[in-house]
Amino acid sequence: MNSYTAPIRDMQFALFDVLEAEALYAKLGADTAQRDVLDAVLEEAAKFTQGVLAPLNQSGDAEGCTHDRETGKVTSPKGFADAYRQYVEGGWAGLTAPEAVGGQELPESFGLLFKEMIDAANLAWGNYPLLSHGATEALKHHGEDWQKDVFLTRIVSGEWTGTMCLTEPHCGSDLGLLRTRAEPREDGSHAISGTKIFITAGEHDFTDNIVHLVLARLPDAPAGTKGISLFIVPKVKVDREGRVGDANTVHCGSIEHKMGIHGSSTCVMNFDGAEGWLIGQPNKGLNAMFTMMNTARLAVGVQGLGLIDRAFQNALAYSRDRLQMRSMSGAKFPDKPADPIIVHPDVRRMLLTCKALGEGSRLLALHAATLVDVMERSTDEQERRDADAFLSFLTPVVKACLTEWSVECTYHALQCFGGHGYVREWGMEQLARDARITTIYEGTTQIQALDLLGRKVIQQQGVGLKQAAAMLQSFCAEHAGNDAMSEFITPLAEAAKDYEALTREIAGRAGENPDEIGAAAVDYLFCTGYLMLGYWWARSVVAAEAGTHDDAFRQAKRETARFYFARILPRRLTHAAAIRSGGENLLRLDAAHFDA
Amino acid sequence: MNSYTAPIRDMQFALFDVLEAEALYAKLGADTAQRDVLDAVLEEAAKFTQGVLAPLNQSGDAEGCTHDRETGKVTSPKGFADAYRQYVEGGWAGLTAPEAVGGQELPESFGLLFKEMIDAANLAWGNYPLLSHGATEALKHHGEDWQKDVFLTRIVSGEWTGTMCLTEPHCGSDLGLLRTRAEPREDGSHAISGTKIFITAGEHDFTDNIVHLVLARLPDAPAGTKGISLFIVPKVKVDREGRVGDANTVHCGSIEHKMGIHGSSTCVMNFDGAEGWLIGQPNKGLNAMFTMMNTARLAVGVQGLGLIDRAFQNALAYSRDRLQMRSMSGAKFPDKPADPIIVHPDVRRMLLTCKALGEGSRLLALHAATLVDVMERSTDEQERRDADAFLSFLTPVVKACLTEWSVECTYHALQCFGGHGYVREWGMEQLARDARITTIYEGTTQIQALDLLGRKVIQQQGVGLKQAAAMLQSFCAEHAGNDAMSEFITPLAEAAKDYEALTREIAGRAGENPDEIGAAAVDYLFCTGYLMLGYWWARSVVAAEAGTHDDAFRQAKRETARFYFARILPRRLTHAAAIRSGGENLLRLDAAHFDA
Repeated sequence: MNSYTAPIRDMQFALFDVLEAEALYAKLGADTAQRDVLDAVLEEAAKFTQGVLAPLNQSGDAEGCTHDRETGKVTSPKGFADAYRQYVEGGWAGLTAPEAVGGQELPESFGLLFKEMIDAANLAWGNYPLLSHGATEALKHHGEDWQKDVFLTRIVSGEWTGTMCLTEPHCGSDLGLLRTRAEPREDGSHAISGTKIFITAGEHDFTDNIVHLVLARLPDAPAGTKGISLFIVPKVKVDREGRVGDANTVHCGSIEHKMGIHGSSTCVMNFDGAEGWLIGQPNKGLNAMFTMMNTARLAVGVQGLGLIDRAFQNALAYSRDRLQMRSMSGAKFPDKPADPIIVHPDVRRMLLTCKALGEGSRLLALHAATLVDVMERSTDEQERRDADAFLSFLTPVVKACLTEWSVECTYHALQCFGGHGYVREWGMEQLARDARITTIYEGTTQIQALDLLGRKVIQQQGVGLKQAAAMLQSFCAEHAGNDAMSEFITPLAEAAKDYEALTREIAGRAGENPDEIGAAAVDYLFCTGYLMLGYWWARSVVAAEAGTHDDAFRQAKRETARFYFARILPRRLTHAAAIRSGGENLLRLDAAHFDA
Repeated sequence: MNSYTAPIRDMQFALFDVLEAEALYAKLGADTAQRDVLDAVLEEAAKFTQGVLAPLNQSGDAEGCTHDRETGKVTSPKGFADAYRQYVEGGWAGLTAPEAVGGQELPESFGLLFKEMIDAANLAWGNYPLLSHGATEALKHHGEDWQKDVFLTRIVSGEWTGTMCLTEPHCGSDLGLLRTRAEPREDGSHAISGTKIFITAGEHDFTDNIVHLVLARLPDAPAGTKGISLFIVPKVKVDREGRVGDANTVHCGSIEHKMGIHGSSTCVMNFDGAEGWLIGQPNKGLNAMFTMMNTARLAVGVQGLGLIDRAFQNALAYSRDRLQMRSMSGAKFPDKPADPIIVHPDVRRMLLTCKALGEGSRLLALHAATLVDVMERSTDEQERRDADAFLSFLTPVVKACLTEWSVECTYHALQCFGGHGYVREWGMEQLARDARITTIYEGTTQIQALDLLGRKVIQQQGVGLKQAAAMLQSFCAEHAGNDAMSEFITPLAEAAKDYEALTREIAGRAGENPDEIGAAAVDYLFCTGYLMLGYWWARSVVAAEAGTHDDAFRQAKRETARFYFARILPRRLTHAAAIRSGGENLLRLDAAHFDA
């Protein structure tokens, strides 16, 4: 009852028309990324995700994963493992991985569109390859050669999958508290012991082996986050020559029963002196982990995007179909017993909110991914450094805003269905339940906001922020004389100016009291997100009118942009007022008196 | 893992200190509603809801209701029927019903606090008595004497329960489309035939009989909403003398599988020539139904309130307990491995949002309920009419805002738990799932918003609105010279003034195009809610400082009010900007081009 069609046209528009990716790929020497090839791959990706993954979404939710206490085995929902086999056979696993390890080395920004399709089609299933992608990044950047040969190639081929084992029962956002131990052994390996929780894809029936990347402490490690190292701990032991041996002492103790993503296994993993291999430098595990986390954070942002689009598509179809009441300005379909609910202004408001946030989010995420491409492929060191700084600034925004908007938009889309949205068969409530994890895992919205404001803006003196400001300024200057664009450029320039002022005000107050950062962070994050989306919507109008698009497409872009500027961008007013009210109104009430 | 303690102190503060209910009850001649009696009843109500209902909340969600296709029987979760027996034996069923039909005739505003406790303790269970309350109202106001004798007394005693059968598969918000037929029979009864869906408590194992109130069309009825009549259709036939006979031809065809409120049965009810009795006038069924719906709308608003409070309590306890990271302004608990997360400003922001919206909602709902008391008990006709008009204005605000805020606050509370909030055992995700229905049933937020702006403000020329304005104006005037209150009075007066201007602007535009009402309605509804809560928070400060409360309580009220004015009330800026942008940005995009 809940369907998905990959929005290929808007994806192409976003990547090629707005972000001008063809020129970028050429400049970066991504020779295989020719437009005709990419278009063909998109079509195939749509076929795979719509045909194989989407039909398993509701059944996977209803069935969930099961865990056998005796053996520790986890069984995924019917069809999931077979879909993974098709994914591997289709060559999808290595789409963006380096050719040197067997990948196809297509740009990350292009891979993001495939990722969006997967998440829209079947978010729970998508978590299995997502974690492999993170492991790939960590191994690519920090692994020794033999580790790449043995583990990375098999993850890239899809033969094995990866995980990220960070969280422990007492230690979620605060990794400094972690207790898992790593004891050196004579053969250069380590014995890893401890318990990790909330391990996505920690155990499953897709592959014979699973490559866990585990944070643990060496015996002499300093306390806190400076004493954490990263280890490769395969489910089945593998030697340096790649020979598969006995089962390792890693065991899935149980799986969580969750609000949503029932088809994803979320595991408690027990490491009992398991054989592990240090990756990167001792006590520098967080560096390597951040490589994975940044990738994973963008990926979770894309999950939000996928959910928004799927929710929107279904709500739109229902709103065109469902007859209920007459338009207040007179019957629009007098021959029908009632008008379709899409005539009602507030239904349109909800649909347009999904459309504006969804299509805007696609551009924001793609922009971040093009920066990954520049970082990985540019031959100009300054350009790579700039891209890195800008990406660091944008990553928490993509992660947090897109996921928060997915919670909002799955809410709106469900609301369009009325009571039918609340019953399982229509599939809308699943999207809302699935969305709810995205603002939590890979760092909550609160953690992202502190990363953005505390680390990227205040501590690093806003290197990325300055690039965002320059981007906005140059765009506004370029279109300053364009009357047709002034309805967008004027409010965008005003929003950018107020954002700069806000940033200065917060920085000033933070000098007095660092808690002012925490008090402003989430509102600041949203201000950033709404400003960025304003930029992308204005650029969308320019790109739509420059290209050879039909009138309907151009109208849709311009009207959605108008809606965005009229009804979404003004959210910044409330966020700015909250920020300007300062931290005292949050800090004054004694913790003991909240329920006085 | 998820607990509930009735907030008796804040309930007493709200009802007696802020709303000055003792004086009101005395004036209305509610002689049995003495303060010492009410305090004792509150204590007993807390014992019952905490001790009997709350422990069944998570188990009821996990187990859900089951339906036997053969017999049509519905089995409620373990313990639910027994809890209902205790409820009946405790005399709770008739708490606010008239003494003439066996009730205790306590004021509705007092009964609301018991209702809040029920909903916080176990929302799904609370739906069974909720529907009885609606049926009681309809029978009380529109039933013939024999109908009151036969049906009402047994609903009030709790021997039987009631339902409201409105919705049909093709007809939700638009009752004009309904098709269920009523054929007159010679004995004065009617044969009712049709299918109703989403019937809460339509079938269950609590009682031997269930009294369905069913909307249907007489053979000669005009089309649309002017041809709808209301009928009493008992599950087991009863004659005019109250003698119970054979099973009626009413059958539960299936139950819905829903996102939440699993312990509530949501039934498809098939009426197959079932014996029914007309209640009220032919073709005037909607009038009688509105009596039920207004009661039910306030009741659903209170569901939102109950959920907010329960979510807040659990998030607060967790945030004081969970150690994670250090305060950015320096360790607050250096002897512990990390600080409790309540030191972090954004955790405080989320908790304070729950506290401010929850305690403010309690006052808003209680205010509406005192108007019910005035309507039902005042001997002054003008006073009754005024109360009716003000209540009509407030009902959609209570229904929609409190439920929308419950969605928001269960979100925040879950977020405080991080990943633990997403797994079932902590019970937070259940609160979020349960909350999600409340913005839909008994009229969606969209329907409430149109009722408020279209009917109550524009069509009825704002009789209730004027009372709200007068209430605000007199309060602001009273405290104009009070320096200690100016931090609240100044922004409140400003918000009230802008709200008046907004209303005029919308009314002006609506004259040109009625769709402007729909375009502004939801934002206007929120503006109303935030303005009302501003008023109640300012009054809370006055009441807290006037009473004999301890410093902690006074501090908590003043600081929460400050938070509300600094960080919640400014939401009106965004809503006002959206309203002032007009309807064109919603209406211009062709329905066919939303996915152009």
